[in-house]
Amino acid sequence: VTDPTKPTLVSGADTRRLLGPWQPPAGEVESEGTWGFADTAFTIDAEGRVLLTGNRYSLAGQPLPNLLPWMRGVMEVDLRADDRHAPHFPPAIPEPVRNAGLETELAGYLRPDQISLDGIQRLRRGHGHTQEEVYNLKHGHWKRIPDLVTFPESDEEVAQLVESAIRHGAVLIPYGGGTNVTDALRCPENEQRTIVSVDMKRMNRIRWIDPVNRLACIEAGAVGRHIVSQLAEHGLMMGHEPDSIEFSTLGGWIATRASGMKKNRYGNIEDIVMDLTAVTAHGALERRQVAPRESVGLEPRQWMFGSEGNLGIITSAVVKLFPLPEVQHYDSLLFKDFSSGVAFMYDLAQAGDWPASARLVDNVQFQFSMALKPASTGFKAWKSKLEKSVVTGVLGYNPNQMVACTLVFEGTREEVARQQALVKRLSKQHGGMPAGGENGARGYQLTFGIAYIRDFVLDHWILAESFETSVPWTQLEGLISRVKQRLLDEHAARKLPGKPFITARVTQIYDTGACVYFYFAYYYKGTPNPTAVYHELENAARDEILKCGGSLSHHHGIGKLRQGFLPQIASPATLAWQAAAKQALDPTNVFGVANQVAPLDASVTPHATDAVKSH
Amino acid sequence: VTDPTKPTLVSGADTRRLLGPWQPPAGEVESEGTWGFADTAFTIDAEGRVLLTGNRYSLAGQPLPNLLPWMRGVMEVDLRADDRHAPHFPPAIPEPVRNAGLETELAGYLRPDQISLDGIQRLRRGHGHTQEEVYNLKHGHWKRIPDLVTFPESDEEVAQLVESAIRHGAVLIPYGGGTNVTDALRCPENEQRTIVSVDMKRMNRIRWIDPVNRLACIEAGAVGRHIVSQLAEHGLMMGHEPDSIEFSTLGGWIATRASGMKKNRYGNIEDIVMDLTAVTAHGALERRQVAPRESVGLEPRQWMFGSEGNLGIITSAVVKLFPLPEVQHYDSLLFKDFSSGVAFMYDLAQAGDWPASARLVDNVQFQFSMALKPASTGFKAWKSKLEKSVVTGVLGYNPNQMVACTLVFEGTREEVARQQALVKRLSKQHGGMPAGGENGARGYQLTFGIAYIRDFVLDHWILAESFETSVPWTQLEGLISRVKQRLLDEHAARKLPGKPFITARVTQIYDTGACVYFYFAYYYKGTPNPTAVYHELENAARDEILKCGGSLSHHHGIGKLRQGFLPQIASPATLAWQAAAKQALDPTNVFGVANQVAPLDASVTPHATDAVKSH
Repeated sequence: VTDPTKPTLVSGADTRRLLGPWQPPAGEVESEGTWGFADTAFTIDAEGRVLLTGNRYSLAGQPLPNLLPWMRGVMEVDLRADDRHAPHFPPAIPEPVRNAGLETELAGYLRPDQISLDGIQRLRRGHGHTQEEVYNLKHGHWKRIPDLVTFPESDEEVAQLVESAIRHGAVLIPYGGGTNVTDALRCPENEQRTIVSVDMKRMNRIRWIDPVNRLACIEAGAVGRHIVSQLAEHGLMMGHEPDSIEFSTLGGWIATRASGMKKNRYGNIEDIVMDLTAVTAHGALERRQVAPRESVGLEPRQWMFGSEGNLGIITSAVVKLFPLPEVQHYDSLLFKDFSSGVAFMYDLAQAGDWPASARLVDNVQFQFSMALKPASTGFKAWKSKLEKSVVTGVLGYNPNQMVACTLVFEGTREEVARQQALVKRLSKQHGGMPAGGENGARGYQLTFGIAYIRDFVLDHWILAESFETSVPWTQLEGLISRVKQRLLDEHAARKLPGKPFITARVTQIYDTGACVYFYFAYYYKGTPNPTAVYHELENAARDEILKCGGSLSHHHGIGKLRQGFLPQIASPATLAWQAAAKQALDPTNVFGVANQVAPLDASVTPHATDAVKSH
Repeated sequence: VTDPTKPTLVSGADTRRLLGPWQPPAGEVESEGTWGFADTAFTIDAEGRVLLTGNRYSLAGQPLPNLLPWMRGVMEVDLRADDRHAPHFPPAIPEPVRNAGLETELAGYLRPDQISLDGIQRLRRGHGHTQEEVYNLKHGHWKRIPDLVTFPESDEEVAQLVESAIRHGAVLIPYGGGTNVTDALRCPENEQRTIVSVDMKRMNRIRWIDPVNRLACIEAGAVGRHIVSQLAEHGLMMGHEPDSIEFSTLGGWIATRASGMKKNRYGNIEDIVMDLTAVTAHGALERRQVAPRESVGLEPRQWMFGSEGNLGIITSAVVKLFPLPEVQHYDSLLFKDFSSGVAFMYDLAQAGDWPASARLVDNVQFQFSMALKPASTGFKAWKSKLEKSVVTGVLGYNPNQMVACTLVFEGTREEVARQQALVKRLSKQHGGMPAGGENGARGYQLTFGIAYIRDFVLDHWILAESFETSVPWTQLEGLISRVKQRLLDEHAARKLPGKPFITARVTQIYDTGACVYFYFAYYYKGTPNPTAVYHELENAARDEILKCGGSLSHHHGIGKLRQGFLPQIASPATLAWQAAAKQALDPTNVFGVANQVAPLDASVTPHATDAVKSH
């Protein structure tokens, strides 16, 4: 009795299904000056209630009367609907640095629609979504952006672009979804050469799917949401769901060593990608075989994970597939306080049979998600309702201390039932209360809708940004509370108005530790250079993170934002290796994006006893 | 109700247990000229029966009357107890290339017992266990071996050694367990510089164990069996069990990207090692934090996986720990033929809830394990008994086609029961028959005892060796049968005596494919240059493997043995990257072991469209 939905092994059969070219559905227009789709934005309605436009998100279309009052309370500032810091998009666009020889050569193998000098197009490819970049789109000056945007459609065209750029002394910056929060796309101001953005979006094909060997070959410019929908037509999935999945691309995931929200079940990007091709200054890294696992010496392809555009342009990858789960089930839990929640997450990690996703949000984030509920009543009524609810009233949960955990279960009916039973047992041990599947689904989906809020609050004098780390279990709680305190102290020391908004969640669990994700926002009205101040505060938080045993990044990467911290996490020899490898592998610096790798400093001389003492 | 055997999270607590220096137990003497422990070897007793000496292995101490008769039958040669190719160990030892300046400098920081010029010691560190090396220990000439053996006891001493070697123009070759089968330790004959073996065995400490964060810091020279026994005292394990675990070291596992037999549960070495320190020509790669997972750009430490001594000397690693399993259970299954077994393994892989180990042996290997049974009866009686057994008699299994699968279950009682039920269900679907836990345990343990047989058969004119690959599921069976046929053809074309011994097993399963492990042996009496002939045949097999979509290696690595195949699996750009990285990271070639990485060839010029077409 074989299950007809399951693939059957036929030895020797060619089980690859070749797929043809593919066009994204019409109507999926991305915004030029803000996050996300053009039809979606937070606004304020006539009655002063916040409203998410469009109909893409569960949050959309319903007035959110509690949000502004709640934020006023938390940030202790007078957030008024009519007090706007009006954005000015587009900003002035710098003139491109032209390179006539290069342009002539490109015209030899690219069609006119594959080359653009358009200012808005160039601007978009010169930024990601750091607080500074987002602010500067509305209020800033742009000294340097890409000079030219190209849209290659094949490996051969990417290879030709690399040759042309080397020949004509230009710089290439690969562009995927533009969703990074590390200043990875920011153009170095002192770059004199012509900067060519290589937009990979037209390399969006799934070339083939092999359901028996559970592999697919996908071009690097394919966008997450399109990969999901196309694979689903075949009953398959890749399982990689970063918060940015709607817009980020396969190539970007590899280049930044991305992590998905369901990594417990499907793995992080390095677990899912079985092989990749990349065009480098030395030619194309590629191979014939796709092995399930190998030991074949130094592996240049592996070096592309986390390379962030420094070493070459990823053009395609062979990824592992999974069958769509028989069952998907959301759930949520409430805990009395953050410590109880962390203890639960630790025990879940130790038990090993993990739900696809388990995330623990702190009290502020819990309150935030409550404030995002489209309550029909006013803020006071809502707050009083919360205070009188069963958990707070009968069970004595303090609304200012309780936290929530959202869970996603995926798998066979049996697996999901088993994991649910485990979660129930462990939750009980830590005084947890079931809070229902609807809240779980809402909590999980909120990630996508909430991404639009930053542009909204920015128009009301609030600068916001997220940053993350990973840390061993015993250091997790201390790290979170010390980072929060450090931000409070730094905020107070600068006499900034109101209170900062600081919240943390545990987003990924591992055997040996977890990923912690912070949101930090502050009210900048009246503060000169608000992005510089944010940067100072964020650096202080990062300094505290490192002191508490956290990593420099769990999945965002380094970019240009965190470069300065590398000497604190890596020994001089490590930095020398990075620089020497960059120089050897990209001798003309054609991939001159200047992310993470500092130029080889003559003062860092090879010396075997230079040592950051470690374990 | 918390389980007292499980760790409890105490946030902020220092949960590291520091451990002191450690000495291996007395009496564990390794053989100088053959595999393994000095007290263990296959011999022939007075009645002509094969016997394994010592008392370390379940196989030991019981006469094995069926082995020689069975081998005679399979190989169709006249294997006689008294027809020996008598070994001559030790061979002539070449004079060391002395370097007075270096020796004087070493004497400044190493004690006399940390330096050796002894011939036998030098010889041992100049080889692994390829067929050619093993043969040459008994019958060959050694032109080049290490000139000096050093025994550093700290990171500092390793760093000093690197500095001294650079200063005095010497070469360093790190030495762990000496168990490689890739000619990784073979000294290049044309190496004019003094070759210093850096024996890491005295760096054998577990520095600390953190049971709450499930981490341990272990020195690179620690031997597998000692890591297992020491961690077990704390109720913990690392879970990495390569076939060589008795002798190989943590540093060697990392340098060769090793795979363990229980990787289904505990992961391969790259999944287990969370951090590492290494001394390189640029200094020490090391850090402060140990993150559960990171995205921190180019990761030199990651490049040490599979580096095989080319880039530096690994001195310690932080590894992930697991609690000792509540239950360990062995099992075995019989299938009618190899195809049924492969279909079972595929379905098991797709089902996902994998036993710690699942291995499928082909019919020859099944018969081999039967022939290794200490039957009290003679060979004919044994054969007749097999033919009359329930499976062969009642169920119609053909003794010349049936295959066996050995399974190891580890985990909680619940996990093991669940996996057993799954195995039972899938086995039934493919006509499998339960063959009991005892046979399972025997099959799994046989790996360790059987490793001694190669030295035994070599003394009876048989050269034997193993090699492995990994391959997608649909290509697995075709690969195995074509490789077997190719070896038969090549053997016949050379008119070699008798028949070759060829057998395969599937040792590791993955979502997308599996690891296949071959044993190949041939009778060389009367054949000039037997190791060269073996090498030709092995290369033919490897050629066939690559043609069938297999990888160059699943876990053995490249060494010097498989270097020549690199252009077949990697594009010119990949090879250029390897060479350029080697030159940049080890400019004076102090780690001049010449494994895998060919010297940078001026003819390989950077050219972006050089391409091995792939997916």
